[in-house]
Amino acid sequence: MPHQIAIVGVGKIARDQHLPAISASPDFDLAATASRNAQVGGVPAYNDLASLLEAQDHVSCVSLCTPPQVRYGDARLALEAGRHVMLEKPPGATLSEVQDLIDLAAAKGLTLYATWHSRHAAAVAEAKAWLADKAIHKLDIQWKEDVRYWHPGQDWIWQAGGLGVFDPGINALSVLTEIYPRALHLSRAELRFPENRDTPVAADLTFYDAGGAQVTAAFDWLHAGPPCWDIHIETDAGTALLSEGGATFAIGGNPTQIGAEMPGEYPSLYARFADLIATGQSETDLSPMRHVADAFTVGRRTVVAPFEW
Amino acid sequence: MPHQIAIVGVGKIARDQHLPAISASPDFDLAATASRNAQVGGVPAYNDLASLLEAQDHVSCVSLCTPPQVRYGDARLALEAGRHVMLEKPPGATLSEVQDLIDLAAAKGLTLYATWHSRHAAAVAEAKAWLADKAIHKLDIQWKEDVRYWHPGQDWIWQAGGLGVFDPGINALSVLTEIYPRALHLSRAELRFPENRDTPVAADLTFYDAGGAQVTAAFDWLHAGPPCWDIHIETDAGTALLSEGGATFAIGGNPTQIGAEMPGEYPSLYARFADLIATGQSETDLSPMRHVADAFTVGRRTVVAPFEW
Repeated sequence: MPHQIAIVGVGKIARDQHLPAISASPDFDLAATASRNAQVGGVPAYNDLASLLEAQDHVSCVSLCTPPQVRYGDARLALEAGRHVMLEKPPGATLSEVQDLIDLAAAKGLTLYATWHSRHAAAVAEAKAWLADKAIHKLDIQWKEDVRYWHPGQDWIWQAGGLGVFDPGINALSVLTEIYPRALHLSRAELRFPENRDTPVAADLTFYDAGGAQVTAAFDWLHAGPPCWDIHIETDAGTALLSEGGATFAIGGNPTQIGAEMPGEYPSLYARFADLIATGQSETDLSPMRHVADAFTVGRRTVVAPFEW
Repeated sequence: MPHQIAIVGVGKIARDQHLPAISASPDFDLAATASRNAQVGGVPAYNDLASLLEAQDHVSCVSLCTPPQVRYGDARLALEAGRHVMLEKPPGATLSEVQDLIDLAAAKGLTLYATWHSRHAAAVAEAKAWLADKAIHKLDIQWKEDVRYWHPGQDWIWQAGGLGVFDPGINALSVLTEIYPRALHLSRAELRFPENRDTPVAADLTFYDAGGAQVTAAFDWLHAGPPCWDIHIETDAGTALLSEGGATFAIGGNPTQIGAEMPGEYPSLYARFADLIATGQSETDLSPMRHVADAFTVGRRTVVAPFEW
């Protein structure tokens, strides 16, 4: 029997990804939504999660699609009410609040799933397997997109805590930390802040790898035209390119065929959530978020031209 | 028989605190030092830790007193060479590098001790015990000092990764996270950066407490006159003040006598390090550093007047 799930925050990411994935999932039925301004036809709708949890006893799990700045309160509410919780990326505004949720879920014996959807892109597992036995010389991330196209009017991304270009950039970091065979840490970061915004529009990162590889990343939100979500890799066994945000992988210029039959990122996330609930586990790897916090902590800031939509 | 210990970084904090504490400790003998420009009379001196470790086989532990930006390399070197490691606060420049050291120490079966000296101030344990059963209404940290007096000429504190006013402020956060009966997380932060420096000179923090208390902190590095390192507390059982950086505690205006017979902060740290080695444990609570990273991540930045020494 499918789990009865509630969605909190019926915005762009919920409509584009979560609702279709739940619809297609054998593991979940959409039982209710909580959102200030939006609803889903035919499904009980509430203005806030507290009302939903009170009215819908049979909702056993909650998927939070709200912006990270407001996610903690709802996650805590759901866990306190005995519900399993799935978090969109990034799992919260601060590392400390997510740690608090991790401790609470453990104390309550509930599943907490901090998702990183890009890790479920079709070719990520293949890239990870290929890298595992290579001597890596160089890895360079180019993660560049047009914020006006991909985040139209989303003002929260420019507000303190909204992460700016690290909102897409954390996807790259979630893939990097998944495929890289060793722990990395930032040795240098340059963050460019528009003079009228609280979050950066671009960043250049350099990582230290105890294995000696050069590991770098460039994030840019003012990139015109089609997005570039690429990871270029040079090894003792030649070059490889993980591109389209992890969807395709090419070795020495030859695309592999792996991935074509893979489920989409979000169907894969919901399948994993069902597994975690079934086995009584949580999954809460914070390493992508920790790299972002490290970049804000050690990064040099420069001020650039104002950003207007 | 005492452990043979090496000090890395013979600077102000080593001379003021570590060397006297080791000198007075029954658990440690100073066997060697590694420092670019300084030495300690009568003790073998090396320019770098690699040479020291190679030459001094009997050195079983290393205490790192260098600035946080350069601490990782030496900590890794010492752990790789099978030595126990003690880290000054903060334990590193990034959370990710410290996590890497934690994992390495665990893999090697060595002790890693990330110290927070202010937690060993004379009255901190008393304040913690008193708070444990109180309903807290309000806690306010005032941590204000004159950077020119306390950090004369230490340019690294103004460089990216040097933390600025969070270098003393993290002491307050180490006490807060020790005495507070619940987990806290930042809900708001304002950071003031001198226009010619990479790190903040002042900060105002507001924490969220699931218990409902108002928890705030004000850090200021341009405070003239005697320093103020105070934590004001209001509870259902009256007010209390933990002052002088944790050295004295007063309830309802009446100083307690606890603490007068306590060992100093650094003797207490070295006693703890010896205990950890003896019991094969590590101690690496990163919560103060996590709050700082959170403040840099979610904080609003304002630019203030240039800072000159």
